[in-house]
Amino acid sequence: MTTASICTIGDEILIGQIVDTNSAVIAREIGRAGVRIREIVTVGDDRQEIRDAIIKELEKSDIVIVTGGLGPTKDDVTKTVLYELSGSSGYVMNAEQLEIIHRILSSRGLDVMEINRLQASVPEKCRVIPNRLGTAPVMAVGFDGEKFGHKAVLYSLPGVPFEMEGALPDVVADIRSIFGLSAITHRTVMTYGIAESALSEKISAWEDALPGNIRLAYLPDPLKGVALRLSVYENEGCRSDGELIEEQLQSLRGILGDNIYSENGETLPEVIGKLLKSEGKTVSTAESCTGGLIASLLTSVPGASDYFLGSVVSYAVSVKENVLGVPAGIVEKYGVVSSECVAAMAQGVRNLTGSDYSVATSGVAGPGGGTENTPVGLVWVGVSSVSGTETMKFSFRNDRLRNIERFSASALDALRRFIIKG
Amino acid sequence: MTTASICTIGDEILIGQIVDTNSAVIAREIGRAGVRIREIVTVGDDRQEIRDAIIKELEKSDIVIVTGGLGPTKDDVTKTVLYELSGSSGYVMNAEQLEIIHRILSSRGLDVMEINRLQASVPEKCRVIPNRLGTAPVMAVGFDGEKFGHKAVLYSLPGVPFEMEGALPDVVADIRSIFGLSAITHRTVMTYGIAESALSEKISAWEDALPGNIRLAYLPDPLKGVALRLSVYENEGCRSDGELIEEQLQSLRGILGDNIYSENGETLPEVIGKLLKSEGKTVSTAESCTGGLIASLLTSVPGASDYFLGSVVSYAVSVKENVLGVPAGIVEKYGVVSSECVAAMAQGVRNLTGSDYSVATSGVAGPGGGTENTPVGLVWVGVSSVSGTETMKFSFRNDRLRNIERFSASALDALRRFIIKG
Repeated sequence: MTTASICTIGDEILIGQIVDTNSAVIAREIGRAGVRIREIVTVGDDRQEIRDAIIKELEKSDIVIVTGGLGPTKDDVTKTVLYELSGSSGYVMNAEQLEIIHRILSSRGLDVMEINRLQASVPEKCRVIPNRLGTAPVMAVGFDGEKFGHKAVLYSLPGVPFEMEGALPDVVADIRSIFGLSAITHRTVMTYGIAESALSEKISAWEDALPGNIRLAYLPDPLKGVALRLSVYENEGCRSDGELIEEQLQSLRGILGDNIYSENGETLPEVIGKLLKSEGKTVSTAESCTGGLIASLLTSVPGASDYFLGSVVSYAVSVKENVLGVPAGIVEKYGVVSSECVAAMAQGVRNLTGSDYSVATSGVAGPGGGTENTPVGLVWVGVSSVSGTETMKFSFRNDRLRNIERFSASALDALRRFIIKG
Repeated sequence: MTTASICTIGDEILIGQIVDTNSAVIAREIGRAGVRIREIVTVGDDRQEIRDAIIKELEKSDIVIVTGGLGPTKDDVTKTVLYELSGSSGYVMNAEQLEIIHRILSSRGLDVMEINRLQASVPEKCRVIPNRLGTAPVMAVGFDGEKFGHKAVLYSLPGVPFEMEGALPDVVADIRSIFGLSAITHRTVMTYGIAESALSEKISAWEDALPGNIRLAYLPDPLKGVALRLSVYENEGCRSDGELIEEQLQSLRGILGDNIYSENGETLPEVIGKLLKSEGKTVSTAESCTGGLIASLLTSVPGASDYFLGSVVSYAVSVKENVLGVPAGIVEKYGVVSSECVAAMAQGVRNLTGSDYSVATSGVAGPGGGTENTPVGLVWVGVSSVSGTETMKFSFRNDRLRNIERFSASALDALRRFIIKG
């Protein structure tokens, strides 16, 4: 199997001020092309350390993908390393990338300065893959079997995520063509409502019986639940990858039922959007402790305006009463963190916006504000439609931000089940 | 300088399904203790690869911190490697961790099964640092100068972020005491409103004149702007680290003015919260394209209920008109993405909630929905108080989610400047 290493460069990652998200994006896309990622390594903006790390990875992997260490504030350390490794004896200006730089900067109303022009200047023995979305091009260096004991290719991509992602499809296409790869089949089944350990117990017999060429990965995420990723490797039988996976999915559906909310990696907001679109229905949210996160998640999906009307974030009691119309008596008698309050909030926002469905939350995210009856981590969720209103409660034991995420995901899952039930 | 490497273990990171956030948290905390992180490396759940990676890092660094590869679904591969590296010849049950496991599970209403008890079982030559917030303890192995040519310590932490973060302070304290470290002084100056490259040009003379023992890092973030982190290393003069930094800050303030919104790393929502609290004032938001993200950011700060009253996410025109009271004539004449509309939204939400301040947004996040006059990436922001209402527009060229983040951060910065102006 073709293997790859990812080298991320940046002092800002080593001091922990930014999280390396590029590696995950690259790993996912390269992995889909059928390449196994062996290792991800991060080093600082130091020429010697970058060089050492790249050489070590080239000795072990067929492909090494480097991001970062380019651009004016980095002194272009990566480019210098590529110059040396490729055995170049000069730089050449890449006309195609230079034209892109002119186009990008002029569309931003900026002049092209020497510092910008230099980004199109590459070591003469590097192959250039122009980057239409960014000013820094991709540079590639191929090595025959002599230098590292096997054929290897080194790619250097920009470190700015937006520019890196713009360049990535062309790099994947290049890898496919050089290494003659066909794609690996993956299928990601999304589940909500069962914790990872309980899920692992529940499906252990199914998991043990999986054929050897189907691999399973558990991928828990506070906003998505637990994703189960099935991958088919080296299928030499007479049935297609899709058929092999479908056979396993049939038994999995019997075990997990409606805890499965998607069989193709879609998120809860995407699934809810599809359900609402197919019914021609609309939704609104009334949020207290979740502070707008549910609305924010629903509107992260392109085209959400087709079914999402709006939200009232009623943090203050006065907003619950005056805007959502929660009766003062309910707040007095039951408190704001109660079944009665979220029911009134859910009904209130439906009246206000005219939406077909609504979901409401009220809970205690912490760190303060907990009481004996409503401890930190407790949330009440209400869902409402013309058919009626239902409420339920959930408990978590996390910090404030994680609690808010769990509250929001649980509310979205409750809404999904409510819409399906009709 | 004491050096460290971080080894993250997990197939799920190598296939790109989760982003390794643990490394950034560890790097930040260990870095604050005065340790330089040399390298971060991620390998899969494979005993041999974990062993090789750990040994290689122990050869180069004084400290190696491993996260992940523990727990039932991972077959405890990391524990097996620690067993071998420590030269243990058996496992022992750690009574303190076992008691914690009982306490945590019973507080969740769960029984303690054999699989849970086993988490307190550790290789006999490992030192245990009990983990009060998680079921997996920290295991440490010390090596004298013989094995790796220098004294070294290996720590194994759980991979679940919440459990890892719970254990981290005790690990940092252990490192400080073993390596006799005093803290490095860092100061993080937060700026908004100048892009990284323009900022770098604007402060280049100041940066060049920094004394050799003060280092500067640029840390751009779509939600925070660009952070400038100043660190004092090996200060042997007669003035304190704080005095050295303060002297540099004085000139920096003269250059950047009110683009600096914090000198201690606080975020925009935190700074706004402090400003409002000190004035005893309240705020509300009216959001269209930002879909609730501004409210969500404001409420991510503990204690936000002291000054945040609520938000109306008015995605549909009907909600803008019926809930916020935007006159239908404004939408007809100027459209929803207009100065007039965000002004009416900002005033409307202030009337509705009775807040002292408000901020409103309306723009085009994309990917679709752009027109010649209101292209994708354009946002109008309105801010309002009893003193009046102001509007302004911003343009970005990103994808949907990044545009929503930029829109929200720009609106928060506009609100901050508006509050300061009074």
